[in-house]
Amino acid sequence: MSERVAQHLAGQREAILERLLTLIRFPSVSTDPAFAEGMRGAREFLLDRLRVIGMQDVQLLDAPAGQPAVYGAWTGAGPDKPTIMIYGHYDVQPADPLELWQSPPFEPTLRDGRIYARGASDVKGSTTIAIETVAAFLAVEGGCPVNVKLFLEGEEEVGSPSLPALIEAHRGLLAADAMLSADGGGAAGKVPVLNIGCRGITALQFSLRTAKKDAHSGKVGGAMRNALHEMARLVATLHDDDGRVVVEGFQAGAGPLTNALRVESASLPLDEPAWYAEFGAAPFGDPAYTVRERTTLRPSVEVNGMWGGYTGRGGKTVTPAEAHAKLTMRLVPGQDPAAAQAAVKAHLERHAPNGVALEFHYSPGGTRAYTLGADHPLRAAASAVLRREKGAEPAVMRLGGTVPITTLFQESLGMDSLMFGLASADEDAHAPNEFFRLSSLDEGLRLWPLLLTEIGRMPAAAFRRTS
Amino acid sequence: MSERVAQHLAGQREAILERLLTLIRFPSVSTDPAFAEGMRGAREFLLDRLRVIGMQDVQLLDAPAGQPAVYGAWTGAGPDKPTIMIYGHYDVQPADPLELWQSPPFEPTLRDGRIYARGASDVKGSTTIAIETVAAFLAVEGGCPVNVKLFLEGEEEVGSPSLPALIEAHRGLLAADAMLSADGGGAAGKVPVLNIGCRGITALQFSLRTAKKDAHSGKVGGAMRNALHEMARLVATLHDDDGRVVVEGFQAGAGPLTNALRVESASLPLDEPAWYAEFGAAPFGDPAYTVRERTTLRPSVEVNGMWGGYTGRGGKTVTPAEAHAKLTMRLVPGQDPAAAQAAVKAHLERHAPNGVALEFHYSPGGTRAYTLGADHPLRAAASAVLRREKGAEPAVMRLGGTVPITTLFQESLGMDSLMFGLASADEDAHAPNEFFRLSSLDEGLRLWPLLLTEIGRMPAAAFRRTS
Repeated sequence: MSERVAQHLAGQREAILERLLTLIRFPSVSTDPAFAEGMRGAREFLLDRLRVIGMQDVQLLDAPAGQPAVYGAWTGAGPDKPTIMIYGHYDVQPADPLELWQSPPFEPTLRDGRIYARGASDVKGSTTIAIETVAAFLAVEGGCPVNVKLFLEGEEEVGSPSLPALIEAHRGLLAADAMLSADGGGAAGKVPVLNIGCRGITALQFSLRTAKKDAHSGKVGGAMRNALHEMARLVATLHDDDGRVVVEGFQAGAGPLTNALRVESASLPLDEPAWYAEFGAAPFGDPAYTVRERTTLRPSVEVNGMWGGYTGRGGKTVTPAEAHAKLTMRLVPGQDPAAAQAAVKAHLERHAPNGVALEFHYSPGGTRAYTLGADHPLRAAASAVLRREKGAEPAVMRLGGTVPITTLFQESLGMDSLMFGLASADEDAHAPNEFFRLSSLDEGLRLWPLLLTEIGRMPAAAFRRTS
Repeated sequence: MSERVAQHLAGQREAILERLLTLIRFPSVSTDPAFAEGMRGAREFLLDRLRVIGMQDVQLLDAPAGQPAVYGAWTGAGPDKPTIMIYGHYDVQPADPLELWQSPPFEPTLRDGRIYARGASDVKGSTTIAIETVAAFLAVEGGCPVNVKLFLEGEEEVGSPSLPALIEAHRGLLAADAMLSADGGGAAGKVPVLNIGCRGITALQFSLRTAKKDAHSGKVGGAMRNALHEMARLVATLHDDDGRVVVEGFQAGAGPLTNALRVESASLPLDEPAWYAEFGAAPFGDPAYTVRERTTLRPSVEVNGMWGGYTGRGGKTVTPAEAHAKLTMRLVPGQDPAAAQAAVKAHLERHAPNGVALEFHYSPGGTRAYTLGADHPLRAAASAVLRREKGAEPAVMRLGGTVPITTLFQESLGMDSLMFGLASADEDAHAPNEFFRLSSLDEGLRLWPLLLTEIGRMPAAAFRRTS
């Protein structure tokens, strides 16, 4: 039946594009209270759209002190069919620096077959594809192949601070057999790719102090610890010359890569010289692993920010008494976020000499790496759709980044996820001149009906094995 | 004759204090154009004062694009008497952070026998002492024991950028046998101290680049050089665990400390535990040297500022492509500033691995260390005055910091200098709640007449030996 749905969607293409552009025009920047009106506008547009297409139980799910999520369900497929939560988010990153945009970030502009606008790729494009797919099933077939719960978050771009509380408050409404995410994934493009996992993350910020106050470098230089020298020496202990993390205990649980994992990782080839060339960077990293392995199957420790002393124009002859650094650690399956975080903290404490005081600022724990099991029905369904549509067995890949909701939904609702977004990695999400390809919109409007149909062929029981 | 002058000065004490407070009230911050009016006010006050006390040739010496200096001469002592340039400066450091001041920085406040205000210690207090000493000689004796050229700079706190050009433009006016500085020195306090030198300085700023743009740490973490890691590793190569500089060629010319220098350095004892305790810092530095040696007779390399990546609130998962550092190097006699600077630059280049591009920002060269020769008449005169007044042979010390004018006047006008300021090291110059002791004002008004009288006993010829 998805063929009629796909035809309907193709016929509605101009109207769908117009609705996507309308959604994009709401400047829904979640991190900045100045954009509260844009957030409200996007929410109301979505609430209205879900009601119009015939979703039930349409409502805002309030977060205690955060941005409410938009919710709507359609459960007419009956208890024997799987219930699928479809995840998307309506908030976007800030558009700064504005001066680098070729067209205004919240006035979507069509150029060269692309929609240029903040949020077009991340993730209003793919969110619209998901909603319109459900709309088309309801309009053409009078129902969906599966039960659907649409959950559109408003805090993804600020790290979903209210999401755990929100889930806790609405466990019943949110119960489902599995989650299909419009965010993440690599469904677009010529090479069929199945995105089955992501690295986890934990973070640590610390300040280092060598004296109670800054001193004049003329007066003390040569006889007093300089906080910047100490920060440099400490950060330099985290990696070896090849960039391998040399923090004792950090990799606990990560284990060596199995042959199966290495074969899986190699299923999607990477042109390593081209990859480095795109960044204008030289090859780097543990030579025992491929670049894809280094960035998806191996953990990392990265200093994201480091500062201290005088950083303004000209000079200041100061021997700084304090320095600061922000770190994030990417985690792979098997690593416990709190343990990895504690290992880095202990390493820094162990390497700080007498006379160097450390102060840590962090939320204990973090997000585990996520992997969708090889035998999960979502994986089988998505593979079948991609295989048929693209004429080849999909390559399997993992994200080097982190999609906290995959871990969160699994840990709190026991729900596995598949990312099936249509955004491509080159679309400058989070950067000026973000865009979304119109061809990806069209592709999404073909793939999503196929995927829901494929999932609908599976009995709900297939999702409920306890393993 | 200095006794009558000193008595006159003591009698005028309230009027002198009032004039000092008036001078302090001009917010003469040279670095910030917003304070142009304060700079102008201080200059006009000084021009007026020099005319009133009977100086000749009173004028502003214009710097091409900088702050003019205030100049006035009195040459009535005749050609057989030495001509002494008296140096001071009327500009002050910015008062920020304002919220840490207990009383407004430009409303001088008397508390506990101290004048609290920006510029009180550095260096309007000692500059006023010098001017009022000349004024008293002219008023009481009708003349000074020596010929005097008062030179009050307006750019000392911004590194005297126009001074070389200004000197070049006014070589005739500025010609003198020696220079006596109201800035620097340790004439105040119970222990008689003769300040006979200072370390030199050279500076270097550099940026480090590992890629053409920042990247998402999830996407690249583990496979791309992080500019902050590279900065840390590079800075960590500059010193060993004890803080010894390990930059090849940097110490060229510095040589080992002679026994004479070590004895000289020990003439002013330092309570090392108390010194460290004042800064709240642990003992540190090359254990082969005392703290005074480390800070005055040994060269140093200090990172004054270091920064890169995300330094705002919260976190950002970025792998930064660039990082920055500002360095200054303190130099000792024998070191060539350009050579020391080049050695540090070469060290950084040598230690930057492939894939790390360095870009340097610096003015070639710098300021040599300065030493007033052991047999210089200024040294003999000041020693005699301090010995008589304080009842003990003055200890000899050097500044760990740099007084570029000492080197500049020597190199450009062949003029040696003695620093004979009354500021004390604990008076929080350059910091909030700067103060100047009223007791130091009184002491200066006794010592300066004695010193000028002592110098006046020496024939001009004593200053003109070619050595």
